[in-house]
Amino acid sequence: MLGVLGGMGPAAGAYFAYRLALLTDVGSDQEHLPVLLVNDPQIPDRSDAVLGRGTSPLPAMRKGLQFLEASGCSCAVIPCNTAHHWYPELAMCVKMPLIHIVSSVVERLRASGIPGGRVGLLGTPATVHSSLYRDALAQAGYAVLPLSEDDVQRLCVRPIKAVKQNRLPQASAALAHSVRVLHDRGAAAVILGCTELPVALAALGRGPLDLPVVDSIDSLAVGALRHFGLNVKPANAL
Amino acid sequence: MLGVLGGMGPAAGAYFAYRLALLTDVGSDQEHLPVLLVNDPQIPDRSDAVLGRGTSPLPAMRKGLQFLEASGCSCAVIPCNTAHHWYPELAMCVKMPLIHIVSSVVERLRASGIPGGRVGLLGTPATVHSSLYRDALAQAGYAVLPLSEDDVQRLCVRPIKAVKQNRLPQASAALAHSVRVLHDRGAAAVILGCTELPVALAALGRGPLDLPVVDSIDSLAVGALRHFGLNVKPANAL
Repeated sequence: MLGVLGGMGPAAGAYFAYRLALLTDVGSDQEHLPVLLVNDPQIPDRSDAVLGRGTSPLPAMRKGLQFLEASGCSCAVIPCNTAHHWYPELAMCVKMPLIHIVSSVVERLRASGIPGGRVGLLGTPATVHSSLYRDALAQAGYAVLPLSEDDVQRLCVRPIKAVKQNRLPQASAALAHSVRVLHDRGAAAVILGCTELPVALAALGRGPLDLPVVDSIDSLAVGALRHFGLNVKPANAL
Repeated sequence: MLGVLGGMGPAAGAYFAYRLALLTDVGSDQEHLPVLLVNDPQIPDRSDAVLGRGTSPLPAMRKGLQFLEASGCSCAVIPCNTAHHWYPELAMCVKMPLIHIVSSVVERLRASGIPGGRVGLLGTPATVHSSLYRDALAQAGYAVLPLSEDDVQRLCVRPIKAVKQNRLPQASAALAHSVRVLHDRGAAAVILGCTELPVALAALGRGPLDLPVVDSIDSLAVGALRHFGLNVKPANAL
């Protein structure tokens, strides 16, 4: 059984479980992966904590992972990019493997046929300003397009905040705008490095964007399906 | 915490948790309802069992509900209409309340402004042939449009089966056709009385159908939010 520590945010955690089901190549209910999702919205804000402004979410995340393991999960995921700042501590608090969201994204980016070059990264300020993605992408031959503080607020925070407030039409319009700006600045692809952004993408419908998008929810779902040896449905069949 | 016994099917269980999050009127993660979702695809087929052809799903469903209660849930839902054939036995196996999907749907139908008359019901053969919806709808002043065995196969089983096989474009086209047929036969609204069907509706985009649709996933989510005293986001804001 796959354990999902969600709630960061709640729509993203549930959307992960939904996409996992839709991305599985099956003929009946019984062929799916069993999933236990704890969607705990009380986990303290990850961005605030990384930026030194709030309570650490680590104790609540540890408790959640330990609950998943005690309930029979043999592998876990956390559909929140910012939470991966605590990956080393989290991976150590349970015996089961914890699939890393950034590794899953980098793997999908390589599989998408974009060989290298400049990519756009949209995420929380904590994620965008840290080495979380930058180092893994550099090792794989990609450079992250630099963003000013103003860019981060306009291109990243705006659509993320709209999803967190369940204002989906505004979120999807803001995301489409951000992708257009990154396209104009020469990005070869855009990484949705915050799990709220795929929710905005879903509200937009999959299609009219200007650039290939590598979505951290779908990437993590594919990573989990591969871990359990399940077949992934081709994206164009969805 | 709300317990969700899902996996029937897996996409429907996860989609319920997703819609619950999107339907909540919030300004931040922390205002959401905590949710524990067991998405157990191994629960034996409900339709087969109702029609006397397979293993009973009751022991697995009881076990799931008892796990949810033992894990701290104070109320539970089962996003599967056919599973509600066992509602009396399931409600008795735990102390927490179990919100009934059919009551939630009838409440949404009344709230939708359709005062009475003929409504279409799409669901599994087990649901459509039983009194599960018929009695509750009759009490509320609605009559279910009769369906022949051939209708049930074409209008209900076809889109449900396509969702269960993750063939969403086929599922949404089949659902749009079913709604059109029910419209032509004089239905005032259509009840999506199988939780696979809202997944087909999502793939279609919300808009181009010929009739008002009362969706058993959204109805159950609204029922759960009201149980916990949370505000529901107006549908037109989604």
